[in-house]
Amino acid sequence: MSYEARLGELGLILPPAPRPVATYVPVVQTGNLLVVSGQVPVENGRVVRPGKLGAEVSVEEGQELARLCVLNGLAQVRQALGSLDRVARVVRVAGYVASAPGFTQQPQVINGASDLLVAIFGEAGRHARVAVGVAELPLGCAVEVEFLFEVTPA
Amino acid sequence: MSYEARLGELGLILPPAPRPVATYVPVVQTGNLLVVSGQVPVENGRVVRPGKLGAEVSVEEGQELARLCVLNGLAQVRQALGSLDRVARVVRVAGYVASAPGFTQQPQVINGASDLLVAIFGEAGRHARVAVGVAELPLGCAVEVEFLFEVTPA
Amino acid sequence: MSYEARLGELGLILPPAPRPVATYVPVVQTGNLLVVSGQVPVENGRVVRPGKLGAEVSVEEGQELARLCVLNGLAQVRQALGSLDRVARVVRVAGYVASAPGFTQQPQVINGASDLLVAIFGEAGRHARVAVGVAELPLGCAVEVEFLFEVTPA
Repeated sequence: MSYEARLGELGLILPPAPRPVATYVPVVQTGNLLVVSGQVPVENGRVVRPGKLGAEVSVEEGQELARLCVLNGLAQVRQALGSLDRVARVVRVAGYVASAPGFTQQPQVINGASDLLVAIFGEAGRHARVAVGVAELPLGCAVEVEFLFEVTPA
Repeated sequence: MSYEARLGELGLILPPAPRPVATYVPVVQTGNLLVVSGQVPVENGRVVRPGKLGAEVSVEEGQELARLCVLNGLAQVRQALGSLDRVARVVRVAGYVASAPGFTQQPQVINGASDLLVAIFGEAGRHARVAVGVAELPLGCAVEVEFLFEVTPA
Repeated sequence: MSYEARLGELGLILPPAPRPVATYVPVVQTGNLLVVSGQVPVENGRVVRPGKLGAEVSVEEGQELARLCVLNGLAQVRQALGSLDRVARVVRVAGYVASAPGFTQQPQVINGASDLLVAIFGEAGRHARVAVGVAELPLGCAVEVEFLFEVTPA
């Protein structure tokens, strides 16, 4: 089954690809690597549930935000490549979690992203990962996720 | 026009490539990817404008520091490759901004780096990016920027 | 001398490869690049010396923790490739240091990792690096280190 079909089967619809909030591009391909800029949980141009984990944002909410970062990231991939079916492998996910002092459940939060990638891409969705708790994120976002994909030639 | 010529046209002079502050190397090439170590705003061996954004360092100062990180990074590239003209593409920029609580304008700060890369490299300077606000940076620096380039064979 | 032999000469024994603390994989290979997930200082499933640099964890302890992250990372590499001798080059190290306010010696801490890599791999161990001070790390760890290797075909 194609990844595009799988997306539909999961009842997921990708949003329009968010535009970068500054002077860079959403995606750069070099060889068969596709580098996707850090994605934040914006929806219709608005930041969803700003704040910090360990303070105003719960782990469950953080997981939903991480899922939204994946949908935004996949929207960038589809816009760049034409179809998710050109993804050969999810290589790396970097998860940045805005963390109040003492919050150490970054892995659980970023699982929201990892679990969704595996649901969509299956074995090809299993990725290397780094997750850290940062002081602040752009626009007051609670979560930011960066992606690296291996893609097949057009 | 060559990137070296463009640099001159912009009135920019690269500093001597800063030496790493520890046991690593400034640049590693693997295939046609050039990985540049995190660059900090040092000038003549001194940290320029240490502190945090949202506290002692303004957004405008932060942008200047991000520009200085680019000049230091390009000095590393020229030292490694002989000339900036071997750059095929700026692939990825990671911007780390030392952020006081509540500071969320990391993208504006790192635009200081992104805008300069586009001014020098044009379309080839447009890169994927991640920007986050961190708790502390080496030597008390306010900004640190890491670079990934695609380069052409020698 | 092989890197496996060198490891023995240094009196080092790799631990069992730690299992990821969440839904991702320890290692992904794409082309001849091996991306290793962020490694934390766990030993026998327990976090060693949790806390922050600049507070309960000293620089010397932080260096030991960074060394432990390297041993755990190399255990992942050996498990994935069969032998450290398939490493062609250490390309990139990213060091994340949980930092109390005012702690700016992240480079010294991550030297614990860099120095050990050079001790084991010699010239091939010299890598590009980024080191930053983060607010919090998973499980309360004081240090997390991510690795990128170039590897030779099987």
